[in-house]
Amino acid sequence: MPILELAQLIRFVLVRTSHPGNIGSAARAMRTMGFLRMELVAPHRFPDREASALAAGADDVLEGAGVHEGLIDGLAGCSLALGLSARRRGVDLPEISPREGASRALAAAARGEQVALVFGNERTGLENEELARCHAMVRIPSVDDFSSLNLSQAVQVMAYELRVALLGGDVPEAPARVDVEPPADAAQMERFYEHLAQTLDDIDFHKGRAPTTIMLRLRKLFQRAQMDERELRMLHGILADAQRMATLARKE
Amino acid sequence: MPILELAQLIRFVLVRTSHPGNIGSAARAMRTMGFLRMELVAPHRFPDREASALAAGADDVLEGAGVHEGLIDGLAGCSLALGLSARRRGVDLPEISPREGASRALAAAARGEQVALVFGNERTGLENEELARCHAMVRIPSVDDFSSLNLSQAVQVMAYELRVALLGGDVPEAPARVDVEPPADAAQMERFYEHLAQTLDDIDFHKGRAPTTIMLRLRKLFQRAQMDERELRMLHGILADAQRMATLARKE
Repeated sequence: MPILELAQLIRFVLVRTSHPGNIGSAARAMRTMGFLRMELVAPHRFPDREASALAAGADDVLEGAGVHEGLIDGLAGCSLALGLSARRRGVDLPEISPREGASRALAAAARGEQVALVFGNERTGLENEELARCHAMVRIPSVDDFSSLNLSQAVQVMAYELRVALLGGDVPEAPARVDVEPPADAAQMERFYEHLAQTLDDIDFHKGRAPTTIMLRLRKLFQRAQMDERELRMLHGILADAQRMATLARKE
Repeated sequence: MPILELAQLIRFVLVRTSHPGNIGSAARAMRTMGFLRMELVAPHRFPDREASALAAGADDVLEGAGVHEGLIDGLAGCSLALGLSARRRGVDLPEISPREGASRALAAAARGEQVALVFGNERTGLENEELARCHAMVRIPSVDDFSSLNLSQAVQVMAYELRVALLGGDVPEAPARVDVEPPADAAQMERFYEHLAQTLDDIDFHKGRAPTTIMLRLRKLFQRAQMDERELRMLHGILADAQRMATLARKE
């Protein structure tokens, strides 16, 4: 299934959100990762100017957002609901990591099922009866002495993990290098090292030290850099100028 | 090394941040994941009441934050700097994912090295000359038509990936590097680039071409190589000899 269709099967459900700004920030966070479907359960204020301002252009998410009285409506059609919770409570839901949650969500979506990520109120989180409608509890691994993520940041972490899972691993789809210069091959590198060694001789760098150790170190350094042909031409140019100076110096 | 000590070797550097609220939100995001060290480079307003409000209790992060005029100071002591960027630009730094970035950061920290995650201005991101001080570019895999994460959310994603990596204990085994030379830090690299630029001038390399392009290319090349202090000393030695030849040549 194409990424777009999979993403449409996954919704973000925000329950009893107090601050409309957080709804806007959550919409933005979803949108950056390609998720459009938001369901709001009993938001304190919505629609609201602050939500729109903080959505920063993710208006399509806010405009499409459903508003519901109860969680049960927000979850309509879903076969899998994952509740986000910072706290370990007396609810005996399985507790899973965001990565595991993303993986399960995607597996369900790939079967054509609808999936919900459920986020509670900013201060109180999800109530036990809300968690009871979920199939597992996702805990973002925050530190014990400061465990409370901002709502939209929890949304961002989940949306990010889902996006990475959708993309099929953690490789960004782009080519690593922007330019198309061919990498230098072994023979070109060898000619460069010869030129470098000759230049070091010409500028009288060795001064009695063993040239082999130095050349070995320089080789290691430039091998690590994995140069392309253009870079190699540039370095040859520099070496040639240093040699030219050495020749002039000797004429004196 | 215990998690706490590893986390202390990793800093979040925010460059030219416009909105103090974002500094506060970033501090909170870091704090939830156990990261305390923030360095601010030329923030538009700091300290600021809004920053404190949005830190939501992460006062220790804000109070400990260093404020610097330039990025070079913010990177002091770091051997690895990873720049966050949403855009694919004409900078050919290697582009890596947040997960790969976290893994590399942790590997460096496990060797006792200091590491920086570098975040640019909210609107304009990192300038090319700022990216040129980084060793790789981390791209959070946002969708093409809505690629701009809120600053604190980008911080959250990186802090989260670092935390997961730290907890996973899958700290990549240390030294691929056999030698125990300390890696060169940003200030040392900067002095090297100055020496290199001066030498190119002395040996009359530019011949009317723009020195900035050349220097940018050379920076990229040597950044990739992640040199240690001994290698740097060796290169300084070579440059000094080339300069000496140039001086002799001019006397003639």
